[in-house]
Amino acid sequence: MKIPGNTFIVTGGASGLGLATCKRLVNLGAQVVLLDFNEENGKSVTAELGPKCTFIQCDVTSTESITAAIEQSEKLHPDNIRGLVNCAGVGGAILTLDRKKRPHDIGMFEHILRINTIGTFDVSRLTSAVIAKLPPLGKRIEGEGGIESGGGERGVIVNVASLAAFEGQDGQAAYAAAKGGVVGMTLPMARDLGRHNIRVMTIAPGSFETPLMTAAAESVQLGIKKGIAFPQEFGQGQEFAHLVTSIIENTYLNGTTIRIDAGARLAKL
Amino acid sequence: MKIPGNTFIVTGGASGLGLATCKRLVNLGAQVVLLDFNEENGKSVTAELGPKCTFIQCDVTSTESITAAIEQSEKLHPDNIRGLVNCAGVGGAILTLDRKKRPHDIGMFEHILRINTIGTFDVSRLTSAVIAKLPPLGKRIEGEGGIESGGGERGVIVNVASLAAFEGQDGQAAYAAAKGGVVGMTLPMARDLGRHNIRVMTIAPGSFETPLMTAAAESVQLGIKKGIAFPQEFGQGQEFAHLVTSIIENTYLNGTTIRIDAGARLAKL
Amino acid sequence: MKIPGNTFIVTGGASGLGLATCKRLVNLGAQVVLLDFNEENGKSVTAELGPKCTFIQCDVTSTESITAAIEQSEKLHPDNIRGLVNCAGVGGAILTLDRKKRPHDIGMFEHILRINTIGTFDVSRLTSAVIAKLPPLGKRIEGEGGIESGGGERGVIVNVASLAAFEGQDGQAAYAAAKGGVVGMTLPMARDLGRHNIRVMTIAPGSFETPLMTAAAESVQLGIKKGIAFPQEFGQGQEFAHLVTSIIENTYLNGTTIRIDAGARLAKL
Amino acid sequence: MKIPGNTFIVTGGASGLGLATCKRLVNLGAQVVLLDFNEENGKSVTAELGPKCTFIQCDVTSTESITAAIEQSEKLHPDNIRGLVNCAGVGGAILTLDRKKRPHDIGMFEHILRINTIGTFDVSRLTSAVIAKLPPLGKRIEGEGGIESGGGERGVIVNVASLAAFEGQDGQAAYAAAKGGVVGMTLPMARDLGRHNIRVMTIAPGSFETPLMTAAAESVQLGIKKGIAFPQEFGQGQEFAHLVTSIIENTYLNGTTIRIDAGARLAKL
Ligand SMILES: NC(=O)c1ccc[n+]([C@@H]2O[C@H](COP(=O)([O-])OP(=O)(O)OC[C@H]3O[C@@H](n4cnc5c(N)ncnc54)[C@H](O)[C@@H]3O)[C@@H](O)[C@H]2O)c1
Ligand SMILES: NC(=O)c1ccc[n+]([C@@H]2O[C@H](COP(=O)([O-])OP(=O)(O)OC[C@H]3O[C@@H](n4cnc5c(N)ncnc54)[C@H](O)[C@@H]3O)[C@@H](O)[C@H]2O)c1
Ligand SMILES: NC(=O)c1ccc[n+]([C@@H]2O[C@H](COP(=O)([O-])OP(=O)(O)OC[C@H]3O[C@@H](n4cnc5c(N)ncnc54)[C@H](O)[C@@H]3O)[C@@H](O)[C@H]2O)c1
Ligand SMILES: NC(=O)c1ccc[n+]([C@@H]2O[C@H](COP(=O)([O-])OP(=O)(O)OC[C@H]3O[C@@H](n4cnc5c(N)ncnc54)[C@H](O)[C@@H]3O)[C@@H](O)[C@H]2O)c1
Repeated sequence: MKIPGNTFIVTGGASGLGLATCKRLVNLGAQVVLLDFNEENGKSVTAELGPKCTFIQCDVTSTESITAAIEQSEKLHPDNIRGLVNCAGVGGAILTLDRKKRPHDIGMFEHILRINTIGTFDVSRLTSAVIAKLPPLGKRIEGEGGIESGGGERGVIVNVASLAAFEGQDGQAAYAAAKGGVVGMTLPMARDLGRHNIRVMTIAPGSFETPLMTAAAESVQLGIKKGIAFPQEFGQGQEFAHLVTSIIENTYLNGTTIRIDAGARLAKL
Repeated sequence: MKIPGNTFIVTGGASGLGLATCKRLVNLGAQVVLLDFNEENGKSVTAELGPKCTFIQCDVTSTESITAAIEQSEKLHPDNIRGLVNCAGVGGAILTLDRKKRPHDIGMFEHILRINTIGTFDVSRLTSAVIAKLPPLGKRIEGEGGIESGGGERGVIVNVASLAAFEGQDGQAAYAAAKGGVVGMTLPMARDLGRHNIRVMTIAPGSFETPLMTAAAESVQLGIKKGIAFPQEFGQGQEFAHLVTSIIENTYLNGTTIRIDAGARLAKL
Repeated sequence: MKIPGNTFIVTGGASGLGLATCKRLVNLGAQVVLLDFNEENGKSVTAELGPKCTFIQCDVTSTESITAAIEQSEKLHPDNIRGLVNCAGVGGAILTLDRKKRPHDIGMFEHILRINTIGTFDVSRLTSAVIAKLPPLGKRIEGEGGIESGGGERGVIVNVASLAAFEGQDGQAAYAAAKGGVVGMTLPMARDLGRHNIRVMTIAPGSFETPLMTAAAESVQLGIKKGIAFPQEFGQGQEFAHLVTSIIENTYLNGTTIRIDAGARLAKL
Repeated sequence: MKIPGNTFIVTGGASGLGLATCKRLVNLGAQVVLLDFNEENGKSVTAELGPKCTFIQCDVTSTESITAAIEQSEKLHPDNIRGLVNCAGVGGAILTLDRKKRPHDIGMFEHILRINTIGTFDVSRLTSAVIAKLPPLGKRIEGEGGIESGGGERGVIVNVASLAAFEGQDGQAAYAAAKGGVVGMTLPMARDLGRHNIRVMTIAPGSFETPLMTAAAESVQLGIKKGIAFPQEFGQGQEFAHLVTSIIENTYLNGTTIRIDAGARLAKL
């Protein structure tokens, strides 16, 4: 799918990977609707990114809030919403049993699933219902630009998982369950939504430069970097965003998860 | 770990794969505590399996209910609970968008995660807190029977996922998310609980002979069987149970998911 | 890494996916050295693509031939070879035992490994020895174009596997072994070559439109397409090539395999 | 499949994991034909294991040698060879580029593939041609012992890969390619041989206690153990052998690879 002129919803767009995604999409000529529950950040981002980017406050754990945000998005960009990038998410580091053999709080486990897994699915199902009603984009025609011409597709959803889905570390049972859930639902969602010419892909990022990461103890940062093949640095938001737009552009990418991690594998702590 | 004389909790033990597991464990000389919310089936199973198997009604979606059931299990088998097999689970077949482009009910999505993923974790964390307080079983000593002697382990948890975690079919977004979550949390749980000498493994079953399967239309059954390498039949409960006990016995199996599916891969419908 | 101005070696570039890769690289401003043993095709491709693309005849199963081709490439583009795309490959459909229970020819098994696996590694090790001697490209600097500036990398290798590495079909034991080998060596190569600031990625294509595919019986083509989520068509060379250039550009992609298959899973025949 | 009374060929049976497998099979009442090119070890093993275990010298890189060994096995155990365990294998630690930027020897790369991948396939295709001519074992009958009765199967092949297939370390490009090849061919071989009622499974062992491992520097051993979830020790041959016999017994295990590694993930060195 071509990016310029189309509208994309980005959840969690007020910070980190979501923010980098909004920037790149706007730079490439798209309109962006940024959904986030952090109003302060959301507003300052839209102030920075200009009129192509609109902020709508939204909590992805509330179906009501999502419904309202999508309705508003449609009004702002009638018949033009072609994609969704699900960056809203939250981590967690809680041992299944702590040193005193006390079990993991079950509320926290549920909370982490609610934002990352249920939230991602809830925004996706409601956005795909909107996209499915749009006319398909132009057919792919060999020799006339192929992939750029669209493949008859209606839209594309990009989810965000994590390496924790594959090699969750100590303390990541909840987060790995949540992101494993996102990885697991990618193919059946692609199969379901393929009937409506909508693609579904997932990105599993390694360790990206975020306030959380750069605030971590030097020893923790070194430990993470030692496990990386190359470059032995944290990822940049632009690199994540580049992968998002590569996926949007390439109609034959569907139903799978891509690791972007500089060759890292998460070790036992 | 040796099976005879030890006690195992089996959730969902009143039917299907859980029932086959209870039978095999009792046959091999273990005690079994069967947790299930189906009282009628639970009672008739325990009547059949004799005094080695006790039924306790329990709803794995309620922390309160699980807590009570585990307390009761401990009283019945003090200092003897060494394992847990999480068979309680429920499927689902709901398209992300149906033919009329109406989105998947979000309550059903959450319900399927609640039983399969959150329920599995909730029973696991509470049972592991009990197991972690037990003395370790005998050390592995080469030449003196190796695996049979136990590896200093305290206990073992066996989760149940599904092929849907890897190749979820159309309509399985929720089920694949739930089972993908179980696959994802296996390694971090093993890393966490390894500190307490407890192993965590997951089984991903293919299509097993259950009332649901054998009630399906002949054409559906044939479709499933065509995708199998060999034997082109549904799996038997005993085969699942055999794998469970192989895992319990083998101390070096940890932190991974085993497919038992006769070489099936789930195709697009 | 930026593409314009850099030189890339593309094996198997005289046809199919390799040819599409050469075209896209040239269109984006790179120089291409096309290695292939098919002289006729190689020459007609270079005639078509103009002076940015040079053909050197080369058999990837011969270390001597590869060595000569790389030496010649270096002379043509001194200190400028920054990447390698390993598209030379060959398929195969031979049952492990045929209907008369006669075993698979072992020479054919070896032949398929020799081109796809050993050939890929041989060209990679020799090309990486050249790349490792180059100065690193500019450092990644946030806010100054990030990914475009290169990450201190020296070069990048893109291998080509196949879905057969994951769900090899009946008759694909040799091909699946060969491509499973390519998938398997991706991470250790990335770890080894990361010390020299060279990345290694692998693409696993689904069914792409090639003379072979479009010559297949309609029923075979329909069978393949039925297993695809969306778009239910063969892939276009441009889509493969788009993924290749996305990988070249994105420094944080390393050590992993990306499926590009429109959500296909290869079924039992 | 039942083990007692049946005959199994074990390659590489004169040492390590193969030796442990021979012991367990003999202990469980099977006959074993041990193929290995180490005559000294082979003879001393058979002296130890008694008349149920026969040694035949064989080099799995020579089709001639394998053919002769299988013919001899058939003569010794007419109409009774029901399984094959492919333990003959060899490791390797060679960087793709060494510190002086000299490339990996290509002969060594090929050598490692020849034993592990081509050797495994060559013994498998020739043994399966023998097994395919045998009458199928008894049908699975529910309620009469299920899995023990055989599932109409004719035989079973167990291959040996390695964690290196998934997370090959620095220096393991060749070994990871070889073992990735074994993993890759597992499903297509199961699909091919399923037509003849023969199963194919693969085991991916972590770090097992072998002379090589225990001879390594203490710091290397500690490094490996730190990456293990539990038990933080090398695996015992008996644990590997237990998994082999679990696979032989369980007819519904087919076409997949099982990790046995105590929850290890191989880190970058
Ligand atoms: N940064 C990393 O290294 C990394 C690694 C792997 C995966 N991820 C995943 O990438 C995604 C983005 O991570 P990030 O590092 O950019 O995080 P971040 O904290 O910088 O940004 C997340 C954004 O999501 C918003 N958000 C959180 N909960 C929300 C809710 N209920 N409703 C609406 N908005 C909500 C936050 O306000 C924030 O703006 C997350 O899913 C995270 O799990 C990040
Ligand atoms: N049968 C198959 O082919 C198959 C395939 C893949 C995975 N599985 C999984 O295996 C597990 C067992 O499946 P099965 O086929 O034996 O199913 P089943 O329906 O025969 O048995 C499941 C049991 O779980 C119990 N249960 C359900 N919800 C519960 C709750 N909230 N609390 C307590 N008990 C509860 C039910 O009462 C029932 O006795 C499930 O997790 C299922 O998803 C089954
Ligand atoms: N086309 C598909 O659908 C598909 C799917 C999965 C994987 N692949 C893989 O993609 C790669 C390219 O496939 P394609 O469809 O473009 O094939 P193709 O046959 O169109 O092109 C392959 C090229 O490799 C060259 N080649 C073969 N052996 C060689 C050797 N020993 N030395 C030098 N050159 C040699 C051929 O001359 C040819 O030009 C192969 O590795 C193939 O296995 C293709
Ligand atoms: N030991 C481990 O930790 C470990 C880990 C992962 C995988 N593996 C794999 O397990 C298998 C067995 O390993 P091991 O540790 O027992 O090794 P080992 O060296 O103790 O035994 C291997 C046996 O194979 C035989 N052999 C080697 N080449 C042969 C040939 N060409 N023909 C016939 N016989 C040959 C050797 O003589 C030896 O007896 C190998 O495939 C190895 O790659 C081992």
